[in-house]
Amino acid sequence: MKSAFPIKLSLTILAGCMLSAGAIGAQTLANDPATLARIRDSAMQEDWAYARLADLTDLVGPRLSGSAGAAAAVDQVAAAMRKIGAKVTLQPVKVPHWVRGAETAELVDYAGRPAGITQKVVLTALGGSGATPAAGLTAPVIVVRDFEELKARAAQVKGAIVLFDVAFDQEMAERGHAGPAYGRGSNFRVNGPKVAAEMGAAAALVRSVGGADYRIAHTGVTGLVDGARIPAAAVTAEDAMLMTRLSARGPVKMHLTLTPQTLPDADSFNVIADLPGGDKADEVVIVSGHLDSWDLATGAHDDGTGVAAAMAVIDTLNKLNLKPRRTIRVIAWMNEENGTQGGKGYFEANKDKVERHFAAIESDSGGGRPFGVIGSVRPSVVKYFAPLQKALEPIGASMFDRRDVTGAADTSPLERAGVPVFMPLVDASSYFSYHHTPADTLDKVNPLELKRHVAVMTGLTWYLANMDESIGRTPKRDD
Amino acid sequence: MKSAFPIKLSLTILAGCMLSAGAIGAQTLANDPATLARIRDSAMQEDWAYARLADLTDLVGPRLSGSAGAAAAVDQVAAAMRKIGAKVTLQPVKVPHWVRGAETAELVDYAGRPAGITQKVVLTALGGSGATPAAGLTAPVIVVRDFEELKARAAQVKGAIVLFDVAFDQEMAERGHAGPAYGRGSNFRVNGPKVAAEMGAAAALVRSVGGADYRIAHTGVTGLVDGARIPAAAVTAEDAMLMTRLSARGPVKMHLTLTPQTLPDADSFNVIADLPGGDKADEVVIVSGHLDSWDLATGAHDDGTGVAAAMAVIDTLNKLNLKPRRTIRVIAWMNEENGTQGGKGYFEANKDKVERHFAAIESDSGGGRPFGVIGSVRPSVVKYFAPLQKALEPIGASMFDRRDVTGAADTSPLERAGVPVFMPLVDASSYFSYHHTPADTLDKVNPLELKRHVAVMTGLTWYLANMDESIGRTPKRDD
Repeated sequence: MKSAFPIKLSLTILAGCMLSAGAIGAQTLANDPATLARIRDSAMQEDWAYARLADLTDLVGPRLSGSAGAAAAVDQVAAAMRKIGAKVTLQPVKVPHWVRGAETAELVDYAGRPAGITQKVVLTALGGSGATPAAGLTAPVIVVRDFEELKARAAQVKGAIVLFDVAFDQEMAERGHAGPAYGRGSNFRVNGPKVAAEMGAAAALVRSVGGADYRIAHTGVTGLVDGARIPAAAVTAEDAMLMTRLSARGPVKMHLTLTPQTLPDADSFNVIADLPGGDKADEVVIVSGHLDSWDLATGAHDDGTGVAAAMAVIDTLNKLNLKPRRTIRVIAWMNEENGTQGGKGYFEANKDKVERHFAAIESDSGGGRPFGVIGSVRPSVVKYFAPLQKALEPIGASMFDRRDVTGAADTSPLERAGVPVFMPLVDASSYFSYHHTPADTLDKVNPLELKRHVAVMTGLTWYLANMDESIGRTPKRDD
Repeated sequence: MKSAFPIKLSLTILAGCMLSAGAIGAQTLANDPATLARIRDSAMQEDWAYARLADLTDLVGPRLSGSAGAAAAVDQVAAAMRKIGAKVTLQPVKVPHWVRGAETAELVDYAGRPAGITQKVVLTALGGSGATPAAGLTAPVIVVRDFEELKARAAQVKGAIVLFDVAFDQEMAERGHAGPAYGRGSNFRVNGPKVAAEMGAAAALVRSVGGADYRIAHTGVTGLVDGARIPAAAVTAEDAMLMTRLSARGPVKMHLTLTPQTLPDADSFNVIADLPGGDKADEVVIVSGHLDSWDLATGAHDDGTGVAAAMAVIDTLNKLNLKPRRTIRVIAWMNEENGTQGGKGYFEANKDKVERHFAAIESDSGGGRPFGVIGSVRPSVVKYFAPLQKALEPIGASMFDRRDVTGAADTSPLERAGVPVFMPLVDASSYFSYHHTPADTLDKVNPLELKRHVAVMTGLTWYLANMDESIGRTPKRDD
C-alpha cells in the first residue's frame, strides 16, 4: 500500500530518513517521524471527536445495556463510521437488561430523634440490585467497616440493612493511584451485597465509591445472583457518615424502597468499523472504547471519550490519506458496565483468529490529560516504541508504562489469550468523582485533552498497525 | 456586676493593666487583653458548638419555615440554651409555609433526537414556585442570557418555559468576592421568574446559583406573587448548558412537572436567649444566626454554624464565669430563607427600643475560616476595636472590614434604623458550592474553623457588651 502515499508525504519521509535514520534505527512506515508528527498535529487541530462525543451525550444521552439509548447509540456510531467510509459490521450480543425503579430511603428512628422527624437518605440502586416490596421495607441499619466486622456481627445481620461505610481514598487517587483506590472501594460494592445476602441481610448499602463530596450517589454493578438478589444501593458519602454518626448514638432504623427490575436479556451489538490494511490486512489492531454507559448520566468520560477517540483514529488517518499495513478495527463495545458481554462475545466469535490480533487498544479511564501509554508487553519489547514516544513528546504524552496485565475490561479475554493490550495513560485523579454519577456530562470533558487523547490513540494505532518488529504476546501468555 | 468577678480574674485584669495599659489606652472590662485571650483560648478548646451543630443537623435535619423540622429546631435550641442557664423566650412569628412536591423534567423533543429518546433534566423547585398541573405541562424552552434578551424575544416568551442560563462566577468567588458573585446570580433567581410571568411565560427556570459542578441543583427563594405564581425551578449548571447546546441545534421542548404547594402561613418562633447584663443591662448586644434552612439539606453551613456559634457565646462566657455589662442576646432567627419574618417581627416588637440596641452581630456566610469582622460603623469608630483585633491575631482573625452597610439579612431592619451590625469576615470561596443544595451537611464543617468562629463571635460580643466608648449609630443613619 506504500504506492498509495501522495508524493508530498513520500518526500517528507525521505527527508525524515536523512535527518534521523541513524538515531532511531531503520526508517519504516510505522516509525517515520514526519508521519507521526502529522498524525499528532492533525489530531490537535480537529474537532471531529468532540462533535461525535457531543452527538452521543447530548442527543442520545444515557445508554445502559438494553435501553433505547443503547440502541440509538449503536445506530448513531454505525452511521458516523459509515459516513467516513469505514467497513461497519454490527456484531450481535445478548446483554443483561436491568432497569432502575423508585429509590427512596429515610431513617425512621434513631436515638435523639424529635417526634415527627425522619431523615432522608440519598441513594441509588446498584446495577443488578433486587427489589424491596413496592411499599418498601423497614429494618435496622448495621454499619460495618469491612468483611471482618460483618462476620463478627453475624447475629445482627440477619434481617438487617447492612451498610459498608468504607471511604474512597481520594488522596490516593490524587497521588496517581486512582485505579487501585477504585479497586479497594469497588470490592465492597461488587462483593459486599452478595456476602450480606448469604448472611441473611434484608438489604445492603455501600458508601459511594468516588471522591466527590456533593452528596451524589455513584452507581455501578454488584455481584448478586438470582435466588439471593437482595435490594442493594449506593448511598452518598454524606449519608453513610450520617448513619455512622447516628449509630454511635444508638440503634438506627431505615425505611427503604428500591424497585428495579431484572428483565430478560436483550439483543444488542458491538459496533465494529474496519479500516482495511494493506500487505498485512489479515492482522488486526483493535482500538476501542465502550458504548454503553450507566443510566444516571450521559457517560461523557465513561466512556464517551474512549469511543469518540477510537472513532477518530480512522477519521484522522483518512484525512491524512494514510493507509495502514494491518487492518485497524475500531470497536465500540456494548455492555462493559454490567456484564462485559460485548468483549466476551467478540472473543468467542474470534477465538480461532486470536493469533491474528497483533494488539488491542482500549480506552476506559476517562478523558483526562494523557501522559503516554500503558501496554502489557514483554520488557524486551518496550524499546521498539521509542519513535512513538518521541513523536508524542511535544504534547507531553511520551511515557510508556509496561505492565504484565493492563486490567482493561472488554479486551481482557484477548489479553488473557496473549494479545498485548494498550491503554492511554491518563490523569484519572478526578475521574472517580464523576464516574457512575449523574455528573458525568459533556461539560466535564476538556476539548483540548480530548484532542491529546485522539493524538495518542491515533499515533499508537498507526504505530502498531505498521511496525516491522514483532511485539509478541503478553508476558502472562501461557506458552 | 463587676463584684461578681472571681478573685483570680480580677488579679489577671490588674496584671494585664500593668503590662499594657500604656500601649492600648485605659484598661476596661472590654479591652482587657488577658480576658480576651482567655475567651479566645477557651473557644479554641471547646467542642460545645460542634455538638450543638451535630444535634441540629443530624437529629433535626432540614428545617424550612413551617416544617416539623423547624418546630423541632426551635424546641432543641431553646432547651439547650435553658440548660446553660440563659433566659429563653420564644417570640411568635407568622412564617410562609411552602412545601416541595414532585419535581421532574425531560426534554421530549429537540433537533437530532433519536426516536424514543428523551433527556432527563435535573432541577429543583424554587421556594415560592407555583405548580404545574399534576400531569405536568409541555412547552418550548427559550434560553436567554439576561433581561435584555428576554425582552427582545418577548413574542417567543408567551406560553414558553424560559431558562435564564447565567453562569455563577466561581472565579470571582475564589478571588474573595463570593457575596457579589452570589448577588449577580441570585438576581436572576429572585427576579427572573417574576418578569417572565409578567410576560406570559408558562414556567421559568434559572441556572443554579453556585459553583459546584456535580449536577446538583441549588434552591432558594424567588419573588413570585399570588396571581402570577408560575412554576419556577433551578436546573443544574450541566442541564442549563445542555439546553443551551441543544437550542443551538434547533427548537427544544420540555415536559415539566412541579407540584409544590403554598399553604397558609404557619406559626413559628424566634428563639431568644439572654445573658443579662450588669450596670448597663438595659442595653442589648445581639449575637445571632438563622435557625431555618432550606428543605434539601441539613443546613450545616447555612446557617447551622451561625446559630451554633451564637449559642456558644453564652456557653463560653459562662464557663469562664464572665458577666457582661450590657445584656447579651442570642437570637436564632426563624425564616431568613424565604421571608425574613423573624428579623422583621423582632424589629416590630422592639421598635421603641432600637436606641437601646448597642450593636447586633449576625453570622450567615457559612463556617469557613474567619479572618476578622465586618462592621457598619463610622470610620472614626474603627480605632476602638484595636484591642479586640490584637486578641484575635493569634488565630489569624484580626481584620476589621468597615462598611456603610453590611448586607446582613435578619438584622437589616435594625441596621436601617441605625444599629451598627457586625458579621464574622469568613472565607466564603466554597460556600456557594454547597449553599442551598442537598450537600450542605455536617461533614462540610471543619471543627477547627467552627472553634475559630466561636472565638471571633464570643470575643466580639464580649467586647461590644463591655466597651466604654460609644460606637454610635451606622454611617447610613438618617439623623
